[in-house]
Amino acid sequence: MAAVTLKDVAERAGVSIKTVSNVVRDAPRVSDATREHVMRAVRELGYRPNASARRLRTGRSGLIALAVPDLATPYFAELAQHVRAQAAKLGLTVLIEETLGDAKEELRLATGVGAALLDGVILSPLHASLDQLAPVASEFPLVLLGERNYERDRLTADHVLIDNVAAAREATAHLAGLGRTRIAAIGVDRKASATSRQRLEGFQLALHTAGLTYDPRLAPTVQDFDRHNGLLAMRTLARLPAGVRPDAVFCFSDMLAVGALRALHEAGLSVPGDVAVAGIDGSDEALYSTPSLTSVVPDRAAIASLAVKCLATRIRSEEDPAPFEVHTAPHWLETRESTVGGRLALP
Amino acid sequence: MAAVTLKDVAERAGVSIKTVSNVVRDAPRVSDATREHVMRAVRELGYRPNASARRLRTGRSGLIALAVPDLATPYFAELAQHVRAQAAKLGLTVLIEETLGDAKEELRLATGVGAALLDGVILSPLHASLDQLAPVASEFPLVLLGERNYERDRLTADHVLIDNVAAAREATAHLAGLGRTRIAAIGVDRKASATSRQRLEGFQLALHTAGLTYDPRLAPTVQDFDRHNGLLAMRTLARLPAGVRPDAVFCFSDMLAVGALRALHEAGLSVPGDVAVAGIDGSDEALYSTPSLTSVVPDRAAIASLAVKCLATRIRSEEDPAPFEVHTAPHWLETRESTVGGRLALP
Repeated sequence: MAAVTLKDVAERAGVSIKTVSNVVRDAPRVSDATREHVMRAVRELGYRPNASARRLRTGRSGLIALAVPDLATPYFAELAQHVRAQAAKLGLTVLIEETLGDAKEELRLATGVGAALLDGVILSPLHASLDQLAPVASEFPLVLLGERNYERDRLTADHVLIDNVAAAREATAHLAGLGRTRIAAIGVDRKASATSRQRLEGFQLALHTAGLTYDPRLAPTVQDFDRHNGLLAMRTLARLPAGVRPDAVFCFSDMLAVGALRALHEAGLSVPGDVAVAGIDGSDEALYSTPSLTSVVPDRAAIASLAVKCLATRIRSEEDPAPFEVHTAPHWLETRESTVGGRLALP
Repeated sequence: MAAVTLKDVAERAGVSIKTVSNVVRDAPRVSDATREHVMRAVRELGYRPNASARRLRTGRSGLIALAVPDLATPYFAELAQHVRAQAAKLGLTVLIEETLGDAKEELRLATGVGAALLDGVILSPLHASLDQLAPVASEFPLVLLGERNYERDRLTADHVLIDNVAAAREATAHLAGLGRTRIAAIGVDRKASATSRQRLEGFQLALHTAGLTYDPRLAPTVQDFDRHNGLLAMRTLARLPAGVRPDAVFCFSDMLAVGALRALHEAGLSVPGDVAVAGIDGSDEALYSTPSLTSVVPDRAAIASLAVKCLATRIRSEEDPAPFEVHTAPHWLETRESTVGGRLALP
């Protein structure tokens, strides 16, 4: 299919390129007769307006990208829907990209093919460092999702996040409030990601407040925040001798918690009778699991709305950028069967 | 950010546009000295090769899109990962789009912004009809995923699918083989989608083979193949009087089955003791649910590989298109706790 250009359409219609451009852009003050005449040539030639050409002409394509580590993680798939809905309100189309947490891919997305085509990028980086991303953010509209190790006075990009320390602290305090005393944490990350470290910090703060001692045997490391790692970690914990074995566990993601529930089922341990389980993400999978999973729910709609608005502002002010900012979205704890027991009916 | 053009780079480097183009395209027979000289200008000006410009120049952008109804459905999110992996092998980059099953959006994706930029589209349509899609397929590389109501001698696009009638038949035969006699179906679609009708056909064939009679009371309609509709349908079935109430249920998706498991838990019915449950999709969520869910597993890697290869062929032969084809990917049944009971350890 040879690309049909504005020029081809103009020649066919016997009008100027400017006139074709006006019709195609739906500009005002084009007569109906002219519009109809030009659109006939557009149809005959199969001309399609070109997003990148639009960017060259207007400086904007109306396209932004959302780049997340993994679409098979429900948290990101559900977040993507909110971002699309929020972007649509501002007339922006969202392309969704999956980085699989690869630092090079994360950088490529913000600097490679994408930048020529896109007005901006919302990126949830797993492994690209802020130092790597800083030059990108300084020359291209970029909003980062998720907690990073930034210092407020040396921000290198816009951030949207929840207060992870508080979130982890609330979930752990809930477990302690049930009278559990040997509370485990699943999600200590060998790579010491910011998410993992902040959730561990909140976990330890809650233990301290409850007068409990942190026992490293109850905090096995994981490689990833997925179901399989939750399964493996909980199997390890379930094999600990009585007296050490946990009676509760806070998992640093719902996927880890789903894996932990499965390991407890395999081991013949009851939830929450033997072990109470809480997660974080507020995923639909957690709501429908049996037992339904107590989880910290980040306000996804707020995260999406903050990220899209922040990016739109950055795109508008590209020539005269404002200082970078941190936006914190709300979260709350939803207690369900996996900690309080009983048989809850879903709405 | 003003767009930097090849011309800007050529002027800065004091060479021809053709030379810059050769360097940027990594063409052979460019001296190292020239390459280094031009690349310095590229870096100084922040020039980025433009995907759409590349398409105008070479006729190809190297970009394809995968458009699925809903990324929050694990089946599609997991499929997307396979498509990306397969496309990468052929040097193609995949943009992922979500249609939310809207027919207009499905058509827009194949004809609007996308087409100017993309080499081709893999589309999993829910509601756009083949008649609507046929003109698109005739002028733009398009591969359709999933079963449609086509007749082999009047194909209007390439298709990749599994044998849904056989898949539903095998799952239902498994339930009948366990001695269940009142087998329900959850997934009869008010919109009579092809997927729903073919799975119902396989379900009915298996009942017939087992000498069981189809009871419409055991086939409630759903609005969507999601967890919530599975929950509602199973609640209705669980309220049927003894003697009518099902002792097994085949759900037309894993999400429906997850909702059904939850409704059975709420009703205090045991799985598989009171009711055996089977799904279809082979999702990770089904594997990790408690009880783990018996499911028909479509060979996602094969579906992705067939779709990408088929699209790549169609892109290559755009000027001289071959007849449309149907490609059938394998599937198999994985029996787990929700039908055979016990306590299975995951790998």
